[in-house]
Amino acid sequence: MRTIAIDAMGGENAPKAIVDAVLKVKPELPETKMVLFGDEAKIKALIPAEQLDDQLAIVNTTEVIADEDEPVKAIRSKKDSSMVVAANYVKQGKADALLSLGNTGALLASGIFIIGRIKGIARPGLMPTLPASSYNNEFNIIDVGANAKSKAEYILQWAKMGTFYAEKVRGIKNPRVALLNNGAESDKGDDLHQEVYQLLAEGSLNFIGNIEGNELMTGKADVVATDGFSGNVALKSIEGMSSVLLHSLKDSLLNNGLFTKLGALMIKGGINEMRQKYDTARHGGAVLLGVNAPVVKTHGRSGARAIYYTLKQVDKILKENLISDFKNEFGK
Amino acid sequence: MRTIAIDAMGGENAPKAIVDAVLKVKPELPETKMVLFGDEAKIKALIPAEQLDDQLAIVNTTEVIADEDEPVKAIRSKKDSSMVVAANYVKQGKADALLSLGNTGALLASGIFIIGRIKGIARPGLMPTLPASSYNNEFNIIDVGANAKSKAEYILQWAKMGTFYAEKVRGIKNPRVALLNNGAESDKGDDLHQEVYQLLAEGSLNFIGNIEGNELMTGKADVVATDGFSGNVALKSIEGMSSVLLHSLKDSLLNNGLFTKLGALMIKGGINEMRQKYDTARHGGAVLLGVNAPVVKTHGRSGARAIYYTLKQVDKILKENLISDFKNEFGK
Repeated sequence: MRTIAIDAMGGENAPKAIVDAVLKVKPELPETKMVLFGDEAKIKALIPAEQLDDQLAIVNTTEVIADEDEPVKAIRSKKDSSMVVAANYVKQGKADALLSLGNTGALLASGIFIIGRIKGIARPGLMPTLPASSYNNEFNIIDVGANAKSKAEYILQWAKMGTFYAEKVRGIKNPRVALLNNGAESDKGDDLHQEVYQLLAEGSLNFIGNIEGNELMTGKADVVATDGFSGNVALKSIEGMSSVLLHSLKDSLLNNGLFTKLGALMIKGGINEMRQKYDTARHGGAVLLGVNAPVVKTHGRSGARAIYYTLKQVDKILKENLISDFKNEFGK
Repeated sequence: MRTIAIDAMGGENAPKAIVDAVLKVKPELPETKMVLFGDEAKIKALIPAEQLDDQLAIVNTTEVIADEDEPVKAIRSKKDSSMVVAANYVKQGKADALLSLGNTGALLASGIFIIGRIKGIARPGLMPTLPASSYNNEFNIIDVGANAKSKAEYILQWAKMGTFYAEKVRGIKNPRVALLNNGAESDKGDDLHQEVYQLLAEGSLNFIGNIEGNELMTGKADVVATDGFSGNVALKSIEGMSSVLLHSLKDSLLNNGLFTKLGALMIKGGINEMRQKYDTARHGGAVLLGVNAPVVKTHGRSGARAIYYTLKQVDKILKENLISDFKNEFGK
């Protein structure tokens, strides 16, 4: 049986959305046990008694790491927080993966300092799955901010881990790998990106060359390798533009007279379809790759539906033995 | 009289869109002369004879730099191209500014190698003006890709030139300057960004701290300073997401049945309003700051309307004597 440790206290809708998602996914994952970490009384009140069976347990914790807490300090001082206790569970082998909606920095620190790096991995990288504009497509991008300073060696390992993930978890054959850069040609970018380009070109991955920011969403690559700084800028720029445009669309539709307002009602279905397509939550959480267990972060504002998808994603990572593959590959 | 040298052969709609824009803006800028560089026969055919007066001239050139030409090689080998001849005109003091819709790399090279760096400027930076989501707002971001490798000294100069521009050309009092980084705190980012943060914090600009990719479009800062690599990634990610969402919106509206299609017709006004707001062309071209004359690039697919706005922008830069300010400030 696989076991997922779930921080039930992180995010805006905790613990209700988390518990709802767990109850929804439970019958679909009969081989999987889920352990909720947090305020036992509050969590228990949300769960019908008969659901607390072999597949579902609660571990009471008394502290919560807040979004504004300084990450490394928080995991050291809040020893009885839902996140830290859950991470220790994983470290002790009592659970196989960690999921949280809480403080991203603290979760990364829990992964790196408590659960620990895989031997042979220089730096773990954070990798979300994002929607691409071509039909039913998505792409992975790694690292998006676990590392402000990157070396060629790190980026190569991220590209390789991303490839493993795309193959096994997303079922892509021979995933196309691209390097985020400021132009298409091989000599583009600074020294770091030129070096990584050469190494990828000479390596064994299915490297298709550089990709620019405006091509990310086209689905041209299955896996985008990037230094953690630029990756963070790209991810946040995409999120920011998407949010600004969708809000602006709403404003334009509501403030252009009755005729437009009526039209807006009529296109609701179309807009919702688009919203869903670019709803990053549907594509699961961001995975910290390179630590001894899957550590997955999903948006703090996620509702039960997004968490449900993320739980299925975590289960799939475990089922596919991704961590064993990494250990075999990098621990040699 | 101010003189603008205009590469009439660059971009998808050359020379027609360029000539149309020139004819439209001409009566509004009676103090300004415009010189069109390109195929004289083609250009002349688009201009009523009486319009060829003190304010408007044509210089015949026989070559064109294509988008796929290697920039530095192209400006060296295509000596009689519209772009290179126009740049030489500026160098020789026969014109005060250069505008082109052509090959961006070649235009940057023309600016740096033909027109030349201002004494005291380490590296010229490319700066577009982008729309922000708050009402009637916009922001500048520099450098977005003239430099793949950046040093603290460069970024500080870009922040200062961006501030001058926002003050004089956009009329912003005491412009708010932010540093593009991967987090809000002063210790975020790699060594370069931490160093720049400290220097900006100790300096005389109105520095408001770090800005993240998702905040760019909010209008929180008037001027965003960034290393050229991340700036390029941010700009292209924003453009890419915007394009993907607007196309996707169109698809969703056209492929969801008659009812949605009818609704789409009704909201056309609202959507167009939004499109216009995020239409980067309306905000003028990107300016290469730090060379001896304004060198301005506008999108290759720009139509006459966008070029018209850009001509007004170039004229305003000249009218405000921005280059003299830079020379006084940095040439000391």
